[in-house]
Parts: sequence; C-alpha cells; structure tokens
Amino acid sequence: MKSDIPETCLQRLPIYLNYLKTLPRDGYISSGAIARALNLGEVLVRKDLAYTSAQGRTRVGYNIKELYAALESYLGCNDKKTAVIFGAGGLGSALLSYGGFKNYGIEISAAFDNDINKIGTYIGGKPVYSVQEAAEIIKKLNAKLAVVCVPAAAAQSVADLLVSCGVPAILNFAPLQLNAPQSVTVRNIDVAANLAILSSMI
Amino acid sequence: MKSDIPETCLQRLPIYLNYLKTLPRDGYISSGAIARALNLGEVLVRKDLAYTSAQGRTRVGYNIKELYAALESYLGCNDKKTAVIFGAGGLGSALLSYGGFKNYGIEISAAFDNDINKIGTYIGGKPVYSVQEAAEIIKKLNAKLAVVCVPAAAAQSVADLLVSCGVPAILNFAPLQLNAPQSVTVRNIDVAANLAILSSMI
Repeated sequence: MKSDIPETCLQRLPIYLNYLKTLPRDGYISSGAIARALNLGEVLVRKDLAYTSAQGRTRVGYNIKELYAALESYLGCNDKKTAVIFGAGGLGSALLSYGGFKNYGIEISAAFDNDINKIGTYIGGKPVYSVQEAAEIIKKLNAKLAVVCVPAAAAQSVADLLVSCGVPAILNFAPLQLNAPQSVTVRNIDVAANLAILSSMI
Repeated sequence: MKSDIPETCLQRLPIYLNYLKTLPRDGYISSGAIARALNLGEVLVRKDLAYTSAQGRTRVGYNIKELYAALESYLGCNDKKTAVIFGAGGLGSALLSYGGFKNYGIEISAAFDNDINKIGTYIGGKPVYSVQEAAEIIKKLNAKLAVVCVPAAAAQSVADLLVSCGVPAILNFAPLQLNAPQSVTVRNIDVAANLAILSSMI
C-alpha cells in the first residue's frame, strides 16, 4: 500500500496522466506549464510529482516520456488487475461496456446480478453470473477490486459478501456508507450528491 | 455561493444526510454516535454540522428531524433545479433512468446526443434532443447544471457550448480536465481513475 502519499495527491496523479496524453511524447515540460494548464499551484505540482520516480531538471523540466512512464508505474497501469461488478443495471452495464479501465491495467472480468433475465448473458462482452456464484468466481478470477452498482438497500449485503470473499478494495456507487473492516478500502462515488454539491457551489 | 465552507466538508454533508435516512426521525443523536457510525472524528463531525443551521445540545446531541432538515436545506434539496445530460450512451442513459437526483431537488430534464437513432426518443422518460438544439432548450429549461457523459474527444466542445449558454456548473465524467472560465464550476468524476486509485491503495 502506498501509505506515504496523501489521498488528495494520489487523486491528482490521473489528472496529470490524462493531461500528458494530450501532449507529444518527446520533449520536456516544466512544472509551471503543467500547473498553468491544469489550474493548479506550481509548488503543488512539484510536490505531487515528487511521489513518482520522475525527476524534474532545473530550467528544463520533466522529460515527458519519463514522467508519463513514472505516473503509469505509480498508478499500476502496467500491472494486470481483475475487477468485478455487482449489479448489471444501467450503471453496471455502462461500466461493463466502458473501455477506459484498461488504460489503468484494470480488466472488468465479470458481473453479478440477481435478475434471472440477466444471469447467463453477456454485457459488453463480459459474463453476468448469479450473486450465488460470486464467491467461487471471485476466487477463480483472483479479483481484488469490486464495483458496487446495486441499489442502496442491497449494497451492505454485497459488501459483507465481498469482505467474506477477501476482496480488499470496493468502489461503491450506492448512496450510503458501507460498513467494512479497516483492512478493506472503500471509495464512494455518489453521483447525485456530487451534482447537489456542485449546485450548492454556484 | 457557499464560499465559507471547505469543499471537503461540503462533500461530507450528503454522507450525514444518507446516514440520518437510516435512523428513525424522532429522537436525538450525538456527534459521537454519528462519528462512530461513519468512522469519522467527533470534532470533525461537529465542525461540519456547524456549517448548517442545526444546533447540537450538550449531553443531548442533535434533534434528528432538525438536523435532517438543516442538511437538506443547506444542500438545497428543497429547491427545484434543472439539469441536462450531454451524451445518451451507456452512462448517460443510466443517469437519465436514475431516480436518486430528486432527493436533492434535481430534475434531469433532457439529454443531448449526436446519434440520429437516439434523437427524438425518450430514455428514462426524458427526451433526447440533437446537440444543435441544446442552446435553445437549455435556455427554455433555465438549466443551470449539466452532466457531460460524452467521449473525451468531444467533451471540450460540449464544455465550450455550455459556457456559451451560460451554464455555471458542469459535472464531467470524461477523463480530461475541461477548460472553462473561473465563473464556471467544474467537478470531475473519472470512474476508471477512481478504480486505479483504489487499486494503488491496497
């Protein structure tokens, strides 16, 4: 676990990576230029990038190719990781069909649902299994990441199941706080709350 | 604009609200009990809730009904707000069908897409219009919120359109930083990056 990096810094690393993708891969870029492009402070940019293996050079900046590789390495983009999705409804189906995970070395390998009309089908080319099969399939796939896209009322029981399967990391879209032991890392994305927060900021 | 509240506090207010939803509405709850339930510090909880109009009482705690109302009021849940979605693909369609926005007083009223097979249809009961009609419809709806669910390559042009329409708040799911004037508030949700961050934390 990268416990030395504050989570707020870690959250910015994909932003740098996405920005670098828009640049030609040869040449150099200064922390100031990155800061201006992303509307961040230059000192903050230097501090963030110092967590990676990239070395900025005085008056020259970062070698773009090296910085790109350092960010990819830090974020584990080159390690293969298997994830599963619980809930093959609208959001779950959208994520099953989304190609962007592979940029981070993440393969969504299976989904689980209770709907007998979905079990046994493929969504985005990925098999949908019954929730009853989850423990076995998760073990077989050696999945360490799970995405929870079930309704709020079902989310805690899915979380309990994931904990019992030894899945150490959960991305939760259901609008509630999941109870999980400290050994399990949970991140929440509450889309409606994000829109409400945005609205209260204007 | 609620400029007095740090964004990290603001982000926690929906978490308190969701937690209170699981409790009986009559009675009292202490900041300590909230802190334990949500795995947060008690001082932090008290500081966060002090931004709302809720008044905690020594040795009694918060009246749950009053705290609920104070959080709802602070987050504008009782104000009606109109939002539109750009991109009626998998994610856009899932959000058009999602019922959770109304808890925050947000109505998703229309979607815009370039696909002639989608234009003129309804998804989740919401009309899908051509992007060419967006300026007119946004004005008619008086929409102040927009959700960007288009591919990364199209997202900046959608943002430019939204800025030209005077939309002050954008929730962006495309994996890039949008350029927008300071008067426009942009929040980003990069699902793949969130999963990568989670993965790098285990």
